[in-house]
Amino acid sequence: MTKPVLTVTLNPALDLTVSLSTLHAGEVNKAQAGSLRAAGKGINVAAVLKDLDHTVTATGFLGENNHAQFQDFCEQKAVDNRFLFIPGATRINVKISEVGGRVTDVNLPGLNVPASYWQLLKDNLVPLAKQCSAVVLAGSLPPGLQQNAYAELIHLLKDCDVPVVVDTSGEALLAAVAAKPALIKPNVHELEVFTGQPVTNQQQLLAAGKKLIADGIANVVISDGEKGCYWLTENRIVKAVPPLMDVVSTVGAGDSLVAGLTHCLVNKTALPEGLQLACAVSAHAVEQVGVGILSAERLQQILELVRVEDLSGSL
Amino acid sequence: MTKPVLTVTLNPALDLTVSLSTLHAGEVNKAQAGSLRAAGKGINVAAVLKDLDHTVTATGFLGENNHAQFQDFCEQKAVDNRFLFIPGATRINVKISEVGGRVTDVNLPGLNVPASYWQLLKDNLVPLAKQCSAVVLAGSLPPGLQQNAYAELIHLLKDCDVPVVVDTSGEALLAAVAAKPALIKPNVHELEVFTGQPVTNQQQLLAAGKKLIADGIANVVISDGEKGCYWLTENRIVKAVPPLMDVVSTVGAGDSLVAGLTHCLVNKTALPEGLQLACAVSAHAVEQVGVGILSAERLQQILELVRVEDLSGSL
Repeated sequence: MTKPVLTVTLNPALDLTVSLSTLHAGEVNKAQAGSLRAAGKGINVAAVLKDLDHTVTATGFLGENNHAQFQDFCEQKAVDNRFLFIPGATRINVKISEVGGRVTDVNLPGLNVPASYWQLLKDNLVPLAKQCSAVVLAGSLPPGLQQNAYAELIHLLKDCDVPVVVDTSGEALLAAVAAKPALIKPNVHELEVFTGQPVTNQQQLLAAGKKLIADGIANVVISDGEKGCYWLTENRIVKAVPPLMDVVSTVGAGDSLVAGLTHCLVNKTALPEGLQLACAVSAHAVEQVGVGILSAERLQQILELVRVEDLSGSL
Repeated sequence: MTKPVLTVTLNPALDLTVSLSTLHAGEVNKAQAGSLRAAGKGINVAAVLKDLDHTVTATGFLGENNHAQFQDFCEQKAVDNRFLFIPGATRINVKISEVGGRVTDVNLPGLNVPASYWQLLKDNLVPLAKQCSAVVLAGSLPPGLQQNAYAELIHLLKDCDVPVVVDTSGEALLAAVAAKPALIKPNVHELEVFTGQPVTNQQQLLAAGKKLIADGIANVVISDGEKGCYWLTENRIVKAVPPLMDVVSTVGAGDSLVAGLTHCLVNKTALPEGLQLACAVSAHAVEQVGVGILSAERLQQILELVRVEDLSGSL
């Protein structure tokens, strides 16, 4: 029996997705349909990991007033629900999806985490993580937590002998990198914020990535949307380019990449094949509204079309 | 002890109000704050009627999955909660409020009402209404109901000896008018839809209103925003113009007018004073985020500034 992957979602959201023909700002818009579902990067990562045949334990914070969708998600996906309930209601983020494909997001800051609950999460984390094969820290930080919150968790997890994957941005990412997680997955924009320099070509991208490797991150994966992604380690650089996809929604493509990468870390999949698989999982996400593996056959079709290139010579 | 007013909300909503600096369509917008509250025209009317010292009974349909905010509303306002629960979740409507005052609404169609629940509401309505001083039918119709739903209810209520106030639009208003409720409150746009002709000046407005009186509606109140409102009966026309207000939010101004008008019908307030009061209640609504009477003194201040004009000579 394999150990579960632990996903940590400190700032989850309920996604209210509404569909309409065209959004007119300043007017009353009639939407055709809407749905409310459990969301947040960690939730999406958990869903994809389940489809990649991992057992998953999910923790983090949920508002005690409106956790029905999260309970349903965990039950449907057979995810072990170890969320802590905090006073109030989990935020609702709005995604307005137009017929032409344009998406407008309105994201709320999230529910304030009282200090006592943050302490409780940290107290529970190490015993949980010791039973797990990897820990994924994903998403923004909620109000009430310091920007070094992920860094704190990474330090606590040093004793647990599990790889820690971090997917966040801004100050939280900067602080997390200093704590040296096993894998980070910045996109080009996050890399620019990180280095304080523009990243407009592959050379600049690789230089920025190598700087992170030199800082002591074992695995740096840089995502650049449909142009592909790069996996850098101390002695290898591999690039994977997905096939041209019919894009339904790019929501969750990054989270799917994180799930694919975590899968490879846990299974110790060799590098070119690992990135090829993770890239295919991510490409598969854009051809659906949600996230997940719709069928193993479809994933295999995409995987065979992912072009992999070894750039280790540029080390 | 006075009898309660019965409000009927067939298509309620939870209003998700989010505040941000400027909405950028097609981008990820970070909102500063958000709130989720029980809404729908009938709910707003109930709130204002309570503040006007009426007892209120509220009925209609709520989704059984997410009625906490409505239960809280009824408890806090001491409104007698006679809603019927139907399968599913009440819709969430989004109001995006920018610093500059612009508001973008995204409204969902609402929860489908199964035929058996519609029958149950009708079966319950007459016994409820017989104990009441007035019935207010307010808001749009949910999926599952025919456009003549309000007309059906008005016919059922003919035996109850209570005035029926209707505030809706489009086909539902057309059908309701044919059933001859005691009072309707179209705005200028609804009047144009109703008559099929442009209403660009007071003469056209009064002509359209008089047509409705001739069709057998005892009280036609036409609202024209900050320009004022008109109350037409068979033998009087009164116009009321509110003072210039510092506008915080126009949300609920129409519902507050309906509450004020219903108050006057129940109390048999004479016409010029009645419209003056209803107009003041509506003007008071625009200087607050929500609806209601913040203080009797403030309402009195506004009321004294409402200009009333008797246009009965133009009959």
